[in-house]
Amino acid sequence: MTSTAAVPPPRATYRRLSVEERRAQLLLAALGLFAHRAPDEVSLDEVAVAAGVSRPLVYRYFPGGRQQLYEAALGSAADELTQCFTEPETGPPTERVARVLDRYLRFVDEHDTGFSALLRGGSVVETSRTTTIVDGVRRAAADEILRHLGRMGGTGEKPAGPRLRMMVRSWIAAVEAASLIWLDDGKQPAAAELRGWLVDHLIALLTATAATDPETATVVHDLLALERSAGPAGQLAERVIPVVVEAAHLLPAAPASD
Amino acid sequence: MTSTAAVPPPRATYRRLSVEERRAQLLLAALGLFAHRAPDEVSLDEVAVAAGVSRPLVYRYFPGGRQQLYEAALGSAADELTQCFTEPETGPPTERVARVLDRYLRFVDEHDTGFSALLRGGSVVETSRTTTIVDGVRRAAADEILRHLGRMGGTGEKPAGPRLRMMVRSWIAAVEAASLIWLDDGKQPAAAELRGWLVDHLIALLTATAATDPETATVVHDLLALERSAGPAGQLAERVIPVVVEAAHLLPAAPASD
Repeated sequence: MTSTAAVPPPRATYRRLSVEERRAQLLLAALGLFAHRAPDEVSLDEVAVAAGVSRPLVYRYFPGGRQQLYEAALGSAADELTQCFTEPETGPPTERVARVLDRYLRFVDEHDTGFSALLRGGSVVETSRTTTIVDGVRRAAADEILRHLGRMGGTGEKPAGPRLRMMVRSWIAAVEAASLIWLDDGKQPAAAELRGWLVDHLIALLTATAATDPETATVVHDLLALERSAGPAGQLAERVIPVVVEAAHLLPAAPASD
Repeated sequence: MTSTAAVPPPRATYRRLSVEERRAQLLLAALGLFAHRAPDEVSLDEVAVAAGVSRPLVYRYFPGGRQQLYEAALGSAADELTQCFTEPETGPPTERVARVLDRYLRFVDEHDTGFSALLRGGSVVETSRTTTIVDGVRRAAADEILRHLGRMGGTGEKPAGPRLRMMVRSWIAAVEAASLIWLDDGKQPAAAELRGWLVDHLIALLTATAATDPETATVVHDLLALERSAGPAGQLAERVIPVVVEAAHLLPAAPASD
């Protein structure tokens, strides 16, 4: 439609790309394949076909073949996922976590088979390098959650103690496990319902941990002041009352007035 | 001390062992090495030395070398761990879970480096077969927990629905993550304290899940009737009150009496 050189023609593959553009194009094609297939099932030929280039060209950019391409694609997906965690520190904390989880679950949905294969392990492309990439994402997720709990060592913030850190990291492992089960179950229940339950899980875990860990008790005290009754914490508090009431017989009897 | 042939001599390696005994002896030596070292760092020579036999003898029993020996040792450790989960269905359910966790944490303690390396992934000995073994242990753990929640499809028991199943499996993933962090933190806090917190985690997660899932609500109702105030559920209920009281502002105001 236009003759200016800045607009790419419809078949970008026939345009002369810069080294960086070509690399990005190959990575994008690889990511598309690795997202929905087990890594062991993706061949370099398929990446070449998907990118509309020759196999030797793929090798020129990724001499390490599938392994190198997989690691590069994984690194790129890891960056994308880490971006999902970024959330401004305003508003009720549980609503911030809910937004982060919405973006995370969208990522899981869009990378289903690759996500599953990667975290399940046992693939030939899995190495200590891929493990390091995955661990980096988990660490970023934990840091972001701790930031919203006011415990990342920023200005005026105390760094998290061991119990709080263990709590956040265990919850992240539980979220990962739930995502894998969700994929196995044909993405049931709806992502919004799963997200709601995962937020409830965090609130419950914070509450139980606050019962024995003074630092977590302080964190929960500060968080609750920022929550509102219409948000996740308020909704859970209301819904949990009938459950908790049934535990009344476990409590020591109130002292009789004398 | 005695001359009866039934008592093995001090250096059992010089006794003629049956095929099964020899295999068990080699496995035991391998397990001892794989428990406290990363699998990539254990050589077949070391297994031979530890078992007091020659390298060719190890190969005669395990022609697949280190990989085969690792998988056999892993299978044997998996059986041992699965045994840890067995707990009679009597007494308060949270106390049963506490006993299972005590045995589990002892196993983790006794297999520290191997446990860590296996679950962290990225090792050359990791294959789809090792992944299958680990998944089998996780499934056994989930089934055992569901059994104590009265949801394993036994006589008169309803099989667990998807939310309850997801809940138990996510909690198991959280327990695994906490165990790895515990090993990284030099086995701090004391195992009993960690166990207490893991039980609290399960109680909190059950409570939060009961707030939205009718099946879990029924399970929690039935479980609470079996608990006692001196047990984990009673202790948590008492300790959590000051935390929960701070959430009072999130609840809808009680209707004014008219």
